[in-house]
Amino acid sequence: MTDLERRIAASFARQGLMATLGARLVGVAPGQVRIAAPVTPAVSQQHGAGHAGLTFALGDTAAGYAALTLLPDTSEVMTAEIKINLMRPAIGERVEARGEVLKPGRRLIVVKADVLALTGARETLIATMLGTMVPVAP
Amino acid sequence: MTDLERRIAASFARQGLMATLGARLVGVAPGQVRIAAPVTPAVSQQHGAGHAGLTFALGDTAAGYAALTLLPDTSEVMTAEIKINLMRPAIGERVEARGEVLKPGRRLIVVKADVLALTGARETLIATMLGTMVPVAP
Amino acid sequence: MTDLERRIAASFARQGLMATLGARLVGVAPGQVRIAAPVTPAVSQQHGAGHAGLTFALGDTAAGYAALTLLPDTSEVMTAEIKINLMRPAIGERVEARGEVLKPGRRLIVVKADVLALTGARETLIATMLGTMVPVAP
Amino acid sequence: MTDLERRIAASFARQGLMATLGARLVGVAPGQVRIAAPVTPAVSQQHGAGHAGLTFALGDTAAGYAALTLLPDTSEVMTAEIKINLMRPAIGERVEARGEVLKPGRRLIVVKADVLALTGARETLIATMLGTMVPVAP
Repeated sequence: MTDLERRIAASFARQGLMATLGARLVGVAPGQVRIAAPVTPAVSQQHGAGHAGLTFALGDTAAGYAALTLLPDTSEVMTAEIKINLMRPAIGERVEARGEVLKPGRRLIVVKADVLALTGARETLIATMLGTMVPVAP
Repeated sequence: MTDLERRIAASFARQGLMATLGARLVGVAPGQVRIAAPVTPAVSQQHGAGHAGLTFALGDTAAGYAALTLLPDTSEVMTAEIKINLMRPAIGERVEARGEVLKPGRRLIVVKADVLALTGARETLIATMLGTMVPVAP
Repeated sequence: MTDLERRIAASFARQGLMATLGARLVGVAPGQVRIAAPVTPAVSQQHGAGHAGLTFALGDTAAGYAALTLLPDTSEVMTAEIKINLMRPAIGERVEARGEVLKPGRRLIVVKADVLALTGARETLIATMLGTMVPVAP
Repeated sequence: MTDLERRIAASFARQGLMATLGARLVGVAPGQVRIAAPVTPAVSQQHGAGHAGLTFALGDTAAGYAALTLLPDTSEVMTAEIKINLMRPAIGERVEARGEVLKPGRRLIVVKADVLALTGARETLIATMLGTMVPVAP
């Protein structure tokens, strides 16, 4: 584990919602973070697919941590705003959000996230997100 | 309970994520739906405030059901897209999302939701959302 | 004319695009700005209605100046991001954008704008916008 | 000129705003359209850079025509909603919007556009957009 991975993992572990959703950090690199969670009845909408709230929560968190990887050790980030376009239902064994930084900045960081549904090795893009993260002094 | 309330409550009860978040339907009227949930460690971000994923999930669901109140009994709705601007941290006893329809339509329904943090009788606006719902035949 | 109106009008007069679109500043108050422009063939889309680019330009500018009314004299603002939901075609004699501040802030200002089409005294809401303005030191 | 290029060019030529902005169609392929315009005082904001309204108008139009390339000959498209994140000022000789389809569909088409400022051969990404187009029967 690199220092960067350790730092992101420590913050991730303090997010109660991520534990509640069964989410795991599955990839950390400078400017890029991946988070996955199983699609279960506990996170479903009324027809048994994953809820848009699950898709959003993973994508927002992946995008936020992608921004955080580019900031000094003691910084935090907050989501100022983010938009999600939902393209297909979240049907699969699990969903995985892939957050990345489009434009770093001292005051604003523009981020995106793609969210995929996965079953075995098959991936389907279910949503894409575009947002703004704000660095916050500790 | 009116027929409309019963219909929305029946669909809401099938959303596993809403139960997981401890969310309750607290108001249903034509074009307007309110949903509330407690802020607990199980839905927190890394500093103990409510996670943006909680705020989003309640707002998206309230806005979707607000759209559904204006549709025939057998219809469903899906979120096509929605944007959230987070204005203040979700600090309080509970959060409440107030969804409403801005522009009904046969193909697209434009919706908004305001999300508030509440402690006792004190309310603070923490987020506002603007999105598009799509009616779906059953 | 108040000092505030004079300040906004002076900045508005330097925006070449506003002159090109035939836009006029029609209302300035703390946290609220209105801008109108005629719907002519020069600003049309392919069917003769006002182009979404016209609607956006007026709404974005009205929202930006609404933010500027709350800042010190020497500040500027920039649009960080803004979303537009187009509800009806821009058919009418003129369009008018009504920008307002939802949440002031030192680092980020959350704004909205409604855009209406007007013919005589009849008003139709054609679009709503939600965005983020950033104060910039001069 | 292919049939597809001819069809898009014919519609583009009827958009009065594109002529007013000095915009030209610079690339048409299935699912992808590029539109460019010079940065002149006539399309400026208050400091002489290109106005966000210019950036938006080109990006929205490029994204809309990208969607139209995938539809039958007699269809039209309308923008349902679109969001723009502005990353850098529109400083350069010209701006170019590159629209593309992320997810085709019968009822909704998810699109993106990147907008660049260009000076000679140098390109700078100034904005990215994410939106929804709706096919309309003629």
